Amino acid sequence: MQNILVIGAGKSTGILVSYLQEKSVEHQFTITVGDVRLEQAEQIIGNHEQSNAISLDILDKNDLTQYVDQATVVISMLPARFHIHVARVCLKLKKHMVTASYVSEEMQALDHMVKESGLVFMNEIGVDPGIDHMSAMQVIDRIRAEGGKMILFESFTGGLVAPQSDNNLWNYKFTWNPRNVVVAGQGGVAKFIQEGKYKYIPYQRLFRRTEFLNVPDYGTFEAYANRNSLKYRDIYGIQDVLTLYRGTMRRVGFSKAWNVFVQLGMTDDSYILEDSSTMSYRDFMNSFLPYHPTDSVELKLRHNLKIDQDDVIWLKLKELDLFNATKKIGIVDATPAQALQKILTEKWSLDKDDKDMIVMYHKFGYELDGKKHQIDSTMVVQGENQVKTAMAKTVGLPVAMAAVRILTGEISTPGVHLPIKEEIYTPILKELTQYGIEFTETKVPYLGYNMEDVTP
Amino acid sequence: MQNILVIGAGKSTGILVSYLQEKSVEHQFTITVGDVRLEQAEQIIGNHEQSNAISLDILDKNDLTQYVDQATVVISMLPARFHIHVARVCLKLKKHMVTASYVSEEMQALDHMVKESGLVFMNEIGVDPGIDHMSAMQVIDRIRAEGGKMILFESFTGGLVAPQSDNNLWNYKFTWNPRNVVVAGQGGVAKFIQEGKYKYIPYQRLFRRTEFLNVPDYGTFEAYANRNSLKYRDIYGIQDVLTLYRGTMRRVGFSKAWNVFVQLGMTDDSYILEDSSTMSYRDFMNSFLPYHPTDSVELKLRHNLKIDQDDVIWLKLKELDLFNATKKIGIVDATPAQALQKILTEKWSLDKDDKDMIVMYHKFGYELDGKKHQIDSTMVVQGENQVKTAMAKTVGLPVAMAAVRILTGEISTPGVHLPIKEEIYTPILKELTQYGIEFTETKVPYLGYNMEDVTP
Repeated sequence: MQNILVIGAGKSTGILVSYLQEKSVEHQFTITVGDVRLEQAEQIIGNHEQSNAISLDILDKNDLTQYVDQATVVISMLPARFHIHVARVCLKLKKHMVTASYVSEEMQALDHMVKESGLVFMNEIGVDPGIDHMSAMQVIDRIRAEGGKMILFESFTGGLVAPQSDNNLWNYKFTWNPRNVVVAGQGGVAKFIQEGKYKYIPYQRLFRRTEFLNVPDYGTFEAYANRNSLKYRDIYGIQDVLTLYRGTMRRVGFSKAWNVFVQLGMTDDSYILEDSSTMSYRDFMNSFLPYHPTDSVELKLRHNLKIDQDDVIWLKLKELDLFNATKKIGIVDATPAQALQKILTEKWSLDKDDKDMIVMYHKFGYELDGKKHQIDSTMVVQGENQVKTAMAKTVGLPVAMAAVRILTGEISTPGVHLPIKEEIYTPILKELTQYGIEFTETKVPYLGYNMEDVTP
Repeated sequence: MQNILVIGAGKSTGILVSYLQEKSVEHQFTITVGDVRLEQAEQIIGNHEQSNAISLDILDKNDLTQYVDQATVVISMLPARFHIHVARVCLKLKKHMVTASYVSEEMQALDHMVKESGLVFMNEIGVDPGIDHMSAMQVIDRIRAEGGKMILFESFTGGLVAPQSDNNLWNYKFTWNPRNVVVAGQGGVAKFIQEGKYKYIPYQRLFRRTEFLNVPDYGTFEAYANRNSLKYRDIYGIQDVLTLYRGTMRRVGFSKAWNVFVQLGMTDDSYILEDSSTMSYRDFMNSFLPYHPTDSVELKLRHNLKIDQDDVIWLKLKELDLFNATKKIGIVDATPAQALQKILTEKWSLDKDDKDMIVMYHKFGYELDGKKHQIDSTMVVQGENQVKTAMAKTVGLPVAMAAVRILTGEISTPGVHLPIKEEIYTPILKELTQYGIEFTETKVPYLGYNMEDVTP
């Protein structure tokens, strides 16, 4: 019997394995889940007959080789930096592979050999990247098939807290890796193009150059720009597009308040704070403000960043207990980002009954028959419980669906891939609708960037 | 006869060589000046009998070895990254060496072997670093010799335009490498300590956290923090000091206007602008501002950074011709920093008759006999002409003075050094006064950081 090996028993693995178990009888395969924490793997497989949990340390090459050798398809749910190790073993033993992560340069470099071996290495098939690629390409390909010419593409995704669990002033909780949220935007300038003009936003302006988006039934969101939108011209084959912009969604007002941390330097992950383990939250705040013998940390902050005392930003900061003189950072050799993460995690962790939510918003502008048109397409997925979170569903399900289709030979074009081809996105997007992961399309007048009244 | 080899015929080399030539009869040595541009070396030595100009490419190891072998002391006036190549050859051939640059880790790693070989490798003996070290250590050592305990040390240096040539709204011209000015502050967070509290300023706040300084007869200056002041606790042996802060001086108002470039991302040197060679100055500005079909670049800038039309910052920006739609950046694959440097160089280059100025300001706070005291010490050096600039004098003269003293054996303690020992700073500071490079000390009431009226 064929075998699917799942490495890494993280947050999205539960739902992924459930899906595989559902399909294991019909397609006659067994499932092996490996993790350094055997217990976690065991918990995920439950008492399913065709499933097997193993202790697997991927840095132990013998272990890895042994289990990969028994598999037909290997799914790596490990942190992104480990995929390349798994990929090399898969290539050597001629096994297919699936990941939800961005294709690294090292991974891309394997493309030629992967093709020669007749293997499929499918990457970026989670939610973002993943569902965004598939849902975008489905509409772009359709517009082109109808003879349209793409002139605008914008795409926004947010991992947020669901409305019924949205009970803090930031309208935000950590639904995924908190560290990525704290250092978001620091990987380099945000580059994009608007109406043919190249635009650049540095980190220090990123959270002040947001734009608003309305999602039917869910209200208004805001979005800040992702790092490099320009590369999607080649990936999506829309080289001549006049506007190309990708962003991250938050609830309105989040970014302006987050900018306080950016401006003060509290998100910096590049150096270590002196005496970080014994410093209080208040000391931490004070270290980014000028010395004064008597003025309060509160007033210095408000004065430095010109925050009125009745500004909601001020309430947001107070809600986080940032000025507490008793609570300690308690981390040896912490960077500012690590210290801030600790403070935020106290307030922004999901409670047991909290639900998360994934929101995606695409805008497609195109010319057809001499006229300009626009399609807006939105997707909202809410979590059901602690295992079936929106994030786990939207990451785990497309990964699992791709793995099964590679196993059955339905997806078979060899190479290192993203899910941008029709043979991949059509069946997977269709199957995702059975799990409530579905886009709503609306035709709207083409607006481009002329959204406001611009009469001079 | 002994020989001093000077490598690199840059801006400070002229005055340095003149000094060596003055001393060459008394101390019986010859001078060799080497540069890849032979003409420049020839121009610098003039028709002095004991001087010799050579064409020298330091990347050609044979060349370098040959000339170093003939020397007793080698002065490297090359860009800082090349010093280590010269240092390795000097070590091999057992020659002393002098540079005006910061000791790199690689240079420091040679210390043991330099000591074993009985050689002196003197570094950081220009103006900043250099004269700042010497003048600070002279006062610190004196305070300690008198039984005082250092509690505060602040030090500020500025390379500026002299008052009689100060004719633009920024009160600034490039008197040294423009590139260093454009990227200033980007090497990492500014760290310092004030009254026992560690403080951190990120790049995005650096030019908004300035402080004022008055220099007698020269008026008011402002200073922004240098990268890492904390390391001077060990270098100067003032580990228990409560306040330690080093900064860079500008004329009042410079930093607040410069912050416009920082905020917009125009000083970024980490990525390449699309189509940089054909973009106009106006396009360059516009690329950091939101798209709009009709609003002017001017209004978008003013609105984005909240600059009133009667704010002097606005006049400063206009003075630079930043909004010119005709002038092109004209540099292939330019970074924003390179493009900005080009625009600034047009306006901020010294005219033929312009004079430059170096300003230094130290504050020493200490406790003696149960009381707190403070000494302020200032130095102002103005340029005389295009060769005898203040920068060239303050960099070239201490380097030359150190080289002669190493040659004569007056400075002889082996090792990789900074000029922080009495045997070095006393004679050199004394001799510098003959060239108008001199500090004025004033006793002032100890203020610490309680500078303003702080009654709650």
